[in-house]
Amino acid sequence: MHPFSKNPQACAGNLGECKLLEHIHDWLGESTPPSPYGMGDDTAVLQQSGNLLTTDSLVYNKHFDDGAHPEAVGYKLLARNLSDIASMGGTPLHAVTAFFMPANTSLEWLEGFTRGLGACAQAYGVKIVGGDLTGTDGFLGATLTLDGIAERPLLRGRVKAGDLLYVTGNLGGSISGKHLNFIPRLKEGRQLARYKAVSGCMDITDGLGKDLPGFLSKGLAAQIDLNALPISEAAREQSGRDGRSIEEHAFCDGEDYELLFSVEPTFAEQLEGEWKSSDLTPIRRIGVAVEQNGSMVLMDRAGNPLPHWHGYEHLGKS
Amino acid sequence: MHPFSKNPQACAGNLGECKLLEHIHDWLGESTPPSPYGMGDDTAVLQQSGNLLTTDSLVYNKHFDDGAHPEAVGYKLLARNLSDIASMGGTPLHAVTAFFMPANTSLEWLEGFTRGLGACAQAYGVKIVGGDLTGTDGFLGATLTLDGIAERPLLRGRVKAGDLLYVTGNLGGSISGKHLNFIPRLKEGRQLARYKAVSGCMDITDGLGKDLPGFLSKGLAAQIDLNALPISEAAREQSGRDGRSIEEHAFCDGEDYELLFSVEPTFAEQLEGEWKSSDLTPIRRIGVAVEQNGSMVLMDRAGNPLPHWHGYEHLGKS
Repeated sequence: MHPFSKNPQACAGNLGECKLLEHIHDWLGESTPPSPYGMGDDTAVLQQSGNLLTTDSLVYNKHFDDGAHPEAVGYKLLARNLSDIASMGGTPLHAVTAFFMPANTSLEWLEGFTRGLGACAQAYGVKIVGGDLTGTDGFLGATLTLDGIAERPLLRGRVKAGDLLYVTGNLGGSISGKHLNFIPRLKEGRQLARYKAVSGCMDITDGLGKDLPGFLSKGLAAQIDLNALPISEAAREQSGRDGRSIEEHAFCDGEDYELLFSVEPTFAEQLEGEWKSSDLTPIRRIGVAVEQNGSMVLMDRAGNPLPHWHGYEHLGKS
Repeated sequence: MHPFSKNPQACAGNLGECKLLEHIHDWLGESTPPSPYGMGDDTAVLQQSGNLLTTDSLVYNKHFDDGAHPEAVGYKLLARNLSDIASMGGTPLHAVTAFFMPANTSLEWLEGFTRGLGACAQAYGVKIVGGDLTGTDGFLGATLTLDGIAERPLLRGRVKAGDLLYVTGNLGGSISGKHLNFIPRLKEGRQLARYKAVSGCMDITDGLGKDLPGFLSKGLAAQIDLNALPISEAAREQSGRDGRSIEEHAFCDGEDYELLFSVEPTFAEQLEGEWKSSDLTPIRRIGVAVEQNGSMVLMDRAGNPLPHWHGYEHLGKS
């Protein structure tokens, strides 16, 4: 749905800020508690304190376009942040949002967006406690900041040589739709946080190939079994159309929002067994962390460098 | 300073994201703790938990322009949020930032901005714990989210009829410069939070006249002594140039970032006395909250409606 309207009566800018905030409050529904625990004061007063804090943004024609339902865009804004909390093994608590929008943003689009955001918050027990509205000359985007709590946060950078590498779900092809309706892996992250043998966890957002180096501790490389990558249906379809291999799609496509994690090898069998008997999203062993030898950080099972595939670059350089 | 460059070597987009994040990390200096307590993981792990959460944004050519030093812009981004924490009587703790910027944002501008942000954080004991970078087609802006802590948060909406209204500092004319270098009233806010007789507090951002109605509880009106308004030098100068009265400037100009608060009348004398003997920013009694009679929310000392002056409307409608 196109987010702007030529009919002044249908535009957000026509309402005036106070009325608009009332509408937003209504559209958020029960996801926003009464002031001072929600919107309405200079800052929100939180009823529970978290030890995790993360922020992520969405921009029109970059993270969503006219083909997206506004409800899905609102969902995605929160879900991206939920995925970050999931990767720490945490439980989300409170969110604040900052909107950037031109005066001709349509009320219909904004209502859908806000309802989608509120519904996602309800589904995951998040309270929307405040926000900010900024008028622009045409730019449409939003930032959401989320806090959460984790007793033992799962961190990056503690992977050791010999640790096995796993991912949840299937990879690649997210652009076909999953980027708007993925399920943040909160349950899976919390389960992983219960295992001391899980040495690291992150969510895959820029593509496995781009995210992996940042996941490894210094001096480590990843040996990846390309044949073991869990390939999404969407990646297969795209591969059929664009001629890029399914492995390249799985390895490089952005916005998977799956978890990448590492496990001490002696615990791998137990973890795999317990996982299979749970209702959690399936996991796949995709490789192993090894001592780095030279400058190569990513290699295949035979120790050869992986093809020169790129992940997503936020500022356009690759 | 103009934030963009035509020389590709001097542009942020030329560096690639990883290098750019390394620079940002350096420029933030000691304001950003090591991972996982700062940048570098999916979410930041906080060493102290706050019960306050607020967010505010800055946009190029709206909140700052080419005339502003980038350091001042970085200062302002955090200081706006500090003012919100001040208005709750709180102490700030951690910040996360989301940048929106085109690839041609100049590294020199970005360095100044980031150093200004980091210096402000250092000055007020705030830790910058994470952030997000989003490339745009030309839009330059940033959101900062700040948490903080207050034992007894100062709230809006608890003002009673008869409570006296006060402001800190001087009002009006902020556009001449104060909007970039104001001092967030954190000490003053914390002092006010110690007095049970302070029934409400907020920071004045859209102009006293626009912010006052939102400060009052339902059924109340404000009787304002226009002659008592503390007028800034800048408002006097602007009045001399544009012919609008100094009172209109003080009452309507945005971005004062002073505190508006209410005090039970029996406590007013003690508060004024204690304040005078402190080193806190001076306060001024500007009026009193009265029972609303009809629809008039703002009146002068004689009970006549105040001139139809407008404050700042974020989406351009007034």
